[in-house]
Amino acid sequence: MSTSPDIRIDVSAATPVYRQIVDQIRTRAVEGALRPGDALPSVRRLAIDLGIHFNTVAEAYRALAEEGWIDVAHGKAARVRNRSTPPAPEAAEVEDFRQRLRHLIAEMRAQGLSPGRISRELLTLAEGLKR
Amino acid sequence: MSTSPDIRIDVSAATPVYRQIVDQIRTRAVEGALRPGDALPSVRRLAIDLGIHFNTVAEAYRALAEEGWIDVAHGKAARVRNRSTPPAPEAAEVEDFRQRLRHLIAEMRAQGLSPGRISRELLTLAEGLKR
Repeated sequence: MSTSPDIRIDVSAATPVYRQIVDQIRTRAVEGALRPGDALPSVRRLAIDLGIHFNTVAEAYRALAEEGWIDVAHGKAARVRNRSTPPAPEAAEVEDFRQRLRHLIAEMRAQGLSPGRISRELLTLAEGLKR
Repeated sequence: MSTSPDIRIDVSAATPVYRQIVDQIRTRAVEGALRPGDALPSVRRLAIDLGIHFNTVAEAYRALAEEGWIDVAHGKAARVRNRSTPPAPEAAEVEDFRQRLRHLIAEMRAQGLSPGRISRELLTLAEGLKR
């Protein structure tokens, strides 16, 4: 039986649709909602469910396979891999993530979210990482 | 005199170059490093400095003008606007930001950053927002 990962797509978002799929499946795998061995829906099935082009889903699955999250084999269901954590990233990569966090926070503030509210969101996420 | 916003571009990044420019200028405006009235370099100047196409910078300036961050007028320098904070966003927008934060954190973990390290980054950012 294939696990339906309950993916939500926003075609009007700035993030390309295939990246939205990659981000959501990666997040579920990192957070443990998808576990090694879990089967993903077929490319055709997910494309129909989401109402998007077959190629877009295929591109997302290819990217996830390249990142080591899933195994894809012709004629078989894509399955979540038992992916080991890579070695700690270089300082430059950490700095890159820090910048992306800063930009996202600036975007939230620009949209009218108060610094206090954003701060609470960050603290909640930090708390969740400790569990 | 025009303020040079010290923009860094990574042409190999997943984020389109015009969005990298938008993100960096918006962040500087939100954080106060760029202030209302500051002039930005001309489209031509910034394109030459960054070694990218004229149209890419023009697209970034258009997006920033649409978001209300800068004023652009033909033949004049683009200037940072005195942009008032919009009303608090809808719950759906807050949820969207929360998801983007979650995906970014999952990506950091997938790249090998430990939960403890990410948690510290988030706490530092939360602390910075209180000042």
